[in-house]
Amino acid sequence: MTSPASAPGRSLRLPVRPGIVGTEPYGAPQLDVPHLLNVNENPYPPDADVVASIAADVAAAAGTLNRYPDREFLGLRADLADYLASESGVRVAPEQVWAANGSNEVMLHLLQAFGGPGRRVLSFAPTYSMYPEYARDTLTEWVAGRRAEDFTVDVDAARAAVATHQPSVILLTSPNNPTGTTLPLATVRAVCDAALEVDVDGAPAVVVVDEAYGEFRRIGVPSALELLEEYPNLAVSRTMSKAFALAGARVGYLAASRDLVDVLRVVRLPYHLSAVTQAVARAALRHSTALLAQVDALRTERDATVAWLRARTRDGVPLDVADTDANFVLFGTFDDRHAVWQGLLDRGVLVRETGPDGWLRVSIGTPQDMTAFKDALVEVAGL
Amino acid sequence: MTSPASAPGRSLRLPVRPGIVGTEPYGAPQLDVPHLLNVNENPYPPDADVVASIAADVAAAAGTLNRYPDREFLGLRADLADYLASESGVRVAPEQVWAANGSNEVMLHLLQAFGGPGRRVLSFAPTYSMYPEYARDTLTEWVAGRRAEDFTVDVDAARAAVATHQPSVILLTSPNNPTGTTLPLATVRAVCDAALEVDVDGAPAVVVVDEAYGEFRRIGVPSALELLEEYPNLAVSRTMSKAFALAGARVGYLAASRDLVDVLRVVRLPYHLSAVTQAVARAALRHSTALLAQVDALRTERDATVAWLRARTRDGVPLDVADTDANFVLFGTFDDRHAVWQGLLDRGVLVRETGPDGWLRVSIGTPQDMTAFKDALVEVAGL
Repeated sequence: MTSPASAPGRSLRLPVRPGIVGTEPYGAPQLDVPHLLNVNENPYPPDADVVASIAADVAAAAGTLNRYPDREFLGLRADLADYLASESGVRVAPEQVWAANGSNEVMLHLLQAFGGPGRRVLSFAPTYSMYPEYARDTLTEWVAGRRAEDFTVDVDAARAAVATHQPSVILLTSPNNPTGTTLPLATVRAVCDAALEVDVDGAPAVVVVDEAYGEFRRIGVPSALELLEEYPNLAVSRTMSKAFALAGARVGYLAASRDLVDVLRVVRLPYHLSAVTQAVARAALRHSTALLAQVDALRTERDATVAWLRARTRDGVPLDVADTDANFVLFGTFDDRHAVWQGLLDRGVLVRETGPDGWLRVSIGTPQDMTAFKDALVEVAGL
Repeated sequence: MTSPASAPGRSLRLPVRPGIVGTEPYGAPQLDVPHLLNVNENPYPPDADVVASIAADVAAAAGTLNRYPDREFLGLRADLADYLASESGVRVAPEQVWAANGSNEVMLHLLQAFGGPGRRVLSFAPTYSMYPEYARDTLTEWVAGRRAEDFTVDVDAARAAVATHQPSVILLTSPNNPTGTTLPLATVRAVCDAALEVDVDGAPAVVVVDEAYGEFRRIGVPSALELLEEYPNLAVSRTMSKAFALAGARVGYLAASRDLVDVLRVVRLPYHLSAVTQAVARAALRHSTALLAQVDALRTERDATVAWLRARTRDGVPLDVADTDANFVLFGTFDDRHAVWQGLLDRGVLVRETGPDGWLRVSIGTPQDMTAFKDALVEVAGL
C-alpha cells in the first residue's frame, strides 16, 4: 500500500493510493532517433505560414495573460464545430462541443462524469492501452470484451457484452488503436441501441466513439458523427494531435448532445484550457486545409505500406497485416517481437511494441521514414 | 442519480455519477466590467518585451508541434527550481519539481496519488473553495477543521484534528485564500510532525502547503520551502497565475521530495503539459524580474487598502479586516453582503462573495481600480 521515500537524513513511506502502488508512469519511450514511428504522430511539421499565424495569435493573447482564460471557450468550440461540419457534413452547435488538453483529458472528463466506483466502462480489446488507465484514475471498473480474429467487433457479441456488464460507459474506437480497424455505422448504432437498454441508476449507458484517427479513414467510411442527432447518449471524440499535426499543442475534443456536454462542464477543472492553447488551436483551425494537406499522402503511404508488408514472407509464410483506416499499421506476428523492435531501433527506426502478443505497430511517416523502416525490417526479420 | 438529456425528437436521462448530480460548474462570474477585482489576478499585463519573448519561443516550438511534447519537461522543471532558489533561497533539484495546467491540476494529481476512496483530506476552514471539489473529483473524503476567529490555525487544535481524522493528505494554505492569513513555520512544522504519526495503510500523511500567493507575503515571513529538506512527506505548491501575472497560461507547480514527485508521474495524463505551455512558462521565467516588478507595488497598495478599510466605520463601528499577506483583502461584515456585492458591481467594481457569512473579498488592482472600489464602497455601504 506504500512506497519508500527518502530525503537527506530521513527515510519514510508515502501513502500511495492502493490502485497505483508499484505502477510505472505510462508512455512510450521518447528516444532521439532518425525515424520516429512509434506514437502515430504526423511526420510533417506545420509550415511557415501556420507557424507565423500561431505566433501572431499567441502574441495577441499574451498581452492579457495576467487574466484567467475564458472558461467556456465558446470561440474555440464554434471553430471546432465549423471544422467538423466541413470534414463530415454534420453540423453541431458550439455548445455541443467540448475540448480539453488532449483526448486524454476529454476521456478523463467523460469517466469522471459518468464512471466512478461501482460502475463499469466496457470496451473491446485489443484497443488503446490508455483506456484502462483512465478507468483506474476514475475508480471505474475496466471490462474488455474481445474483438474477433480480424479485429472487428461482432455485433451480437457486443450486444451481449453490454447486456451482461451493464456498463455506464461504452468505449468504441474507430479507427481502432492499435489495429486500425473501423466500425461500420451499423455496429455503432447497434451498440447505441443496446446502451439504451442498460439500467445504471435508472439511466442508459453513454457510448463514446473515439475517432482520434478519423480523418485518415478511407473514402466512403462514415463517421459516427452522423448518429449524433439520433442518440443523446453518444459522444464522438476527435483530436488535433494526429491528422492536424498538432500533438505538441494538446487539444482533444468531442461532439455530443448539449446535456452530455453540460455534465462535463461540472467535472472540468476551472480554466482547464489556457488562453494560449485556445489561441493556438484557433490559429491552426484557420489553417486546417494546409495542416490536413498531408492526410492524403499519408493514406497513400499507408496503403502502400500495407501492400508491401502483405507481399513479404518468412519461410514462405506471408506476414499478417491488419486492415487499417488510421496512420499506422499493425503487423506480425513474430515469435520474439521485442528482438524485432530492438533490431529496428538499432537501425534508427523506432516502432511500438503494442497490441496482441507477437504484433508490432508502425506509424506512417514520410517516404524516407518508410523506406528506412522497410529496409530495416527486411534485415531484421529476414523477409 | 441522473439528469435529463434531450436531443431532437428524443429525451432520456444520462448516467451522471451520484457525487455530482445537480452540481453547477465551479467558477466566479466572468463579467465584462471596468474593475475586475474578483479572482485575484495581477492587474498588470506582461510588457512588450515579455510578449515578444513569449511569441518568439512559441514560434520556435510551433515548428515541431506535430511531435508530442517532452513528457518529463525537465527543462521547465530546472527553470522553476532556479526561480524558487532565487525567490526563497531554497535550492531543489529539477526532479523535485512538478508542474501542471494550473495549481488546480497539481492538486488533482496530489489527491489522485495520495487520496481516494476510504481516505480523507484535512484542511482548515475558511479556506480555498476549490479544495472540496478536488476531493469530490478524486473520491476522497473532505474534512475541514476550523480556523480561529482571527483566521489563524491553532497548533494544538491542528495536531488534534490530524490525530483524530487520520488524513492521508493535509492541505495547509499560506497565505490562505480567502483570508490572506499566513502560517508561522512553527505551525507547518508541528503539522508535519503530526502527519508523521498518522497511519494510513502503514504510511504517514502527506502535507501540502499551498503557497499560490507566496510572493506577496510580507518581508520576513518565511516559505514552507525551508522545511522541504526535513520532511519527505511535504509538498509546497506555487503558481505562475498570481504574482507572475500569467493566469491565462495555466502553470502551477510544486516542490517536494523526489519520491513524492515520482508518484505524481504515475497519475498524470501522458503529455499533460503542452509544448506551447512549456515554452510560454520558460520564456516568462527568463523575464521573472520584469513580471514580478509589480509585486512590491501591489503589496503597498494592499497594505494601504487594509489601512483604509480599517479606518472606515458604519454607525461608529469599524469594519473587520483580516490580516493579509496575499494580493487580496477579506473585509466585512455586512448583514446583506450580496447587496453590497451587487451595489459595487452596479458601479463597475466586481469583487468576490466568498468566505464566511457577511464577508467580501477584494483583489488588489491598480491604484485606479482601488480608488473606484473605495468610492463605490463608501456609497454602497454608507461608510
